Amino acid sequence: MPKIFSADSFQHSDNELKRDYFDRHTPVIECADCVKEGEKLFVKVRVGNAYMHPDEGDHYIAYVQLWNRETLLAETRYYPGTLGNVPGNVEVGFLVVPKVSMNLVAMSYCTKHGLWQSAPRMVKVVHENLDCKNDNQIN
Amino acid sequence: MPKIFSADSFQHSDNELKRDYFDRHTPVIECADCVKEGEKLFVKVRVGNAYMHPDEGDHYIAYVQLWNRETLLAETRYYPGTLGNVPGNVEVGFLVVPKVSMNLVAMSYCTKHGLWQSAPRMVKVVHENLDCKNDNQIN
Amino acid sequence: MPKIFSADSFQHSDNELKRDYFDRHTPVIECADCVKEGEKLFVKVRVGNAYMHPDEGDHYIAYVQLWNRETLLAETRYYPGTLGNVPGNVEVGFLVVPKVSMNLVAMSYCTKHGLWQSAPRMVKVVHENLDCKNDNQIN
Amino acid sequence: MPKIFSADSFQHSDNELKRDYFDRHTPVIECADCVKEGEKLFVKVRVGNAYMHPDEGDHYIAYVQLWNRETLLAETRYYPGTLGNVPGNVEVGFLVVPKVSMNLVAMSYCTKHGLWQSAPRMVKVVHENLDCKNDNQIN
Repeated sequence: MPKIFSADSFQHSDNELKRDYFDRHTPVIECADCVKEGEKLFVKVRVGNAYMHPDEGDHYIAYVQLWNRETLLAETRYYPGTLGNVPGNVEVGFLVVPKVSMNLVAMSYCTKHGLWQSAPRMVKVVHENLDCKNDNQIN
Repeated sequence: MPKIFSADSFQHSDNELKRDYFDRHTPVIECADCVKEGEKLFVKVRVGNAYMHPDEGDHYIAYVQLWNRETLLAETRYYPGTLGNVPGNVEVGFLVVPKVSMNLVAMSYCTKHGLWQSAPRMVKVVHENLDCKNDNQIN
Repeated sequence: MPKIFSADSFQHSDNELKRDYFDRHTPVIECADCVKEGEKLFVKVRVGNAYMHPDEGDHYIAYVQLWNRETLLAETRYYPGTLGNVPGNVEVGFLVVPKVSMNLVAMSYCTKHGLWQSAPRMVKVVHENLDCKNDNQIN
Repeated sequence: MPKIFSADSFQHSDNELKRDYFDRHTPVIECADCVKEGEKLFVKVRVGNAYMHPDEGDHYIAYVQLWNRETLLAETRYYPGTLGNVPGNVEVGFLVVPKVSMNLVAMSYCTKHGLWQSAPRMVKVVHENLDCKNDNQIN
């Protein structure tokens, strides 16, 4: 398997070059923490947070995948130039309808620096009679 | 080439079965009509409008592509079950940074009923000193 | 829909630049003309015949699809550099097991010059008791 | 990251069910061990060796990737039914033109049982004046 890179600790690095390198490759998942069974969940994945990634023919973010544990939910491909050939942050969105609670991970692939994984993100799925806020039955 | 289906006229059909068939396969593009040069544009594509599409192993929307004229900007793949194995509407989002005005078209592929195209959507890109509203120079 | 290019007549052009342009973008299908029901068929698709295509970051063959009429059978993605960053001919192979006779078409996508289609290729599927050679029952 | 499965030891298992499970998910790389610089190399990847994998809507091999260390060279997608909806072995081929010696790994993704990796395969690339057989200069 290709090596998988992650950036658990980049925020705390004293070295800005290193912080930049890790940050701009790392996907970040944004979505609700809890949905009711059968409800739609729109999941956004952005690659990079404070730093930007090049969009050049020999160096670009080529794909972003969204996994729930060992299951691939969806995947978006980019082509060089879609971000205007200037540094930026790939951002993709996927609608999913979870049946049970999920443990999401996003992966992004840079054509020069390989495969990177996000921090995991738990999404709780509660019964339609329950309330996401307090997990108590709604009266 | 596989036949390309589109649904220019489905809204006006008297036959609901036909309206349903066309509607649930047809991608719809949602985005701003105008951005300034170098600005980000988040483009959403939803498959189906008033009607829903199955999400079964032998019948699902497998991909959505976003084209600007003859150039493919990005593409999202779905897998059976991502929409909970119940009828629904695939929805994907892509960030793009246009350099010049675009004529977007989305394509969606159903594993049973082939390739479908959206209505075209023009996005005007104006110089950074201009205003999207009236195309006049900002004073 | 993006325009679909094909090259039905490029062989007969007097203009070598034009012949080159059409030839190096056009996928060519190579496979048996007939198989027995349930038999494996290995299909090769090569992009370009007599002329070669660049393999550069801003100009490369990004994917090859194999369609049977309106059904997508398989698709291969390339990345810039896989052909050594020198002009060449993408070549991919797919195993398929046809149930009924097929009318194959291959599509290739160049990041600079769009979507191209091959000539169609018929593959006859005969009953396991028949012979591909003469379509007569084997005694 | 989703767990990555491999099957280093399945051949020696006494349990046939287990051997079957591991074998039918594991990609196997077939190609030459050595090429000259600039020479074409056709790489075949087959999923499964002695055992076959289902080709059903909710259970199929959805993609095969070919990596050289941390670089993705190419990737093939399958759709349910391309192998005739009967158990079989996905088989794909990619042409690559290596610049330097490679350490190939193939990955395959099963929609039910996740991501699997092949045994690594070294491909030596020798200077065009050398001979693959003995690595000695050709006189």
